[in-house]
Amino acid sequence: MDASRFFCDINPDDFTIDCNQIESLITEKTCAILPVHVYGNICDVEKIEDIAKRHGLKVIYDGAHAFGETYQGKNVANFGDMTMFSFHATKVFNTVEGGALVYQDNSLTERLKGLRQFGQILGTEEVPFVGTNAKISEFHCAMGICNMNYLDEYIEKRKRIAERYTARLEGQPGIQLNNEQDNLKRNYAYYPVVFDEKEKGVSRDKIIEALEAKDIFPRKYFYPLCSDLEFMESEGKGTEVPVAHYVADRVLTLPIFSDMDLDDVDEICDVILSLYDC
Amino acid sequence: MDASRFFCDINPDDFTIDCNQIESLITEKTCAILPVHVYGNICDVEKIEDIAKRHGLKVIYDGAHAFGETYQGKNVANFGDMTMFSFHATKVFNTVEGGALVYQDNSLTERLKGLRQFGQILGTEEVPFVGTNAKISEFHCAMGICNMNYLDEYIEKRKRIAERYTARLEGQPGIQLNNEQDNLKRNYAYYPVVFDEKEKGVSRDKIIEALEAKDIFPRKYFYPLCSDLEFMESEGKGTEVPVAHYVADRVLTLPIFSDMDLDDVDEICDVILSLYDC
Repeated sequence: MDASRFFCDINPDDFTIDCNQIESLITEKTCAILPVHVYGNICDVEKIEDIAKRHGLKVIYDGAHAFGETYQGKNVANFGDMTMFSFHATKVFNTVEGGALVYQDNSLTERLKGLRQFGQILGTEEVPFVGTNAKISEFHCAMGICNMNYLDEYIEKRKRIAERYTARLEGQPGIQLNNEQDNLKRNYAYYPVVFDEKEKGVSRDKIIEALEAKDIFPRKYFYPLCSDLEFMESEGKGTEVPVAHYVADRVLTLPIFSDMDLDDVDEICDVILSLYDC
Repeated sequence: MDASRFFCDINPDDFTIDCNQIESLITEKTCAILPVHVYGNICDVEKIEDIAKRHGLKVIYDGAHAFGETYQGKNVANFGDMTMFSFHATKVFNTVEGGALVYQDNSLTERLKGLRQFGQILGTEEVPFVGTNAKISEFHCAMGICNMNYLDEYIEKRKRIAERYTARLEGQPGIQLNNEQDNLKRNYAYYPVVFDEKEKGVSRDKIIEALEAKDIFPRKYFYPLCSDLEFMESEGKGTEVPVAHYVADRVLTLPIFSDMDLDDVDEICDVILSLYDC
């Protein structure tokens, strides 16, 4: 692996992988593309499928932010060779801790089951490879079965919150909202906002400070970038991904949860907009 | 690491590490000894401490089978530099899934917490090393807090089961029971029995077959041995550990749980002893 070719930059509008850069990064050692449906924005699945087919590559989507979404009427889990989902407590559908893999090739099942169960297959006496203990526990499955009943309701309620944020914040110079995408039924798991200091002198740090003073806690995301971590030295540390840097340095996800009051959304927007003298 | 020197054989009587073999296995690459308090039998902690001190080695105990035990009045977690405990659902104290490390050196805390939390330390922005998601979840902690109240009671009840097994099975040629150890307050987590075919022609497989015919499910343990797994090629696969092989090929743990009926113990013993014409 050419370390400098490990990471691909993102689009400035929807923060998903920049498909126009993918092909130039493929080497003879590349075996897969791992795009992220970030903040619930769906990658350009058609372009990625086309690139992968022409180069004989697998596509493994990180769908941690996209559970429950449909694109062009199809569940997002249908795209690529595999999609990874997270069911952590912070997710729109959660089992407290847990997750799932959805994949097209049934012949992977034995190996995947073995990997999560100490490398054991067919009972406990066959241990052909190294595995770990990555089973989702019965407790967490029970939580998921309960929560599953309310997923549509949760998403519908979150939609109202997101729409209120958008109504209040859109059009403000220095504030970049998450674009709607065509043909996407969203899960509204996150409400990311990019705060660009250049426009009005309002930095992300100022936003955080003002919100935290009111006990409101927004979150930085993907900060620091994986491509900047020390231990990634041999996996592409220092790769030039200027758009990803731009976003990671400026994005905050604002509080959103299904039972959130619209009054609380308004209070958060008031705090933010007051910094812009609105 | 000299691959052939990775594994140490065990004692035939209590199945713990054979301290007389440890020193001959130490090379200049050895940094630690990892003994196992197997089936709740405590290793020779004094001898191991002496060896470790003389060679400047750390001692990390696998205490998965020994939670709640005391040796010479001290909790087993007090021996060595670190003890690993499992709280899996099959353990005498359980959180459904989970475990704990007990260690003497407080300076390890930051790194250990980081390892279980994605490599993050001091919040989420410092990621100095590779970690995983190995946190015990809130659900499982709650289960543990509930179960903790009953640990002494569970152990007391298990003791009755173990004593009944022993009363019924001891003295039978071909059946080796787990020895009592001096100064050890046991947790009775397991009731291991070694069935030696040579004595009376009764193999472990025959015992399994007879019990399973009555819907009773004993368990093989440490079978196959780690030292025989294909993927251990570079970590000592094929190491000669004849005692460990002898035991792994013949041991069964018999059913034991705190609310088990003594009548069920008797039924199990009846099935076993019938094979010996008793």
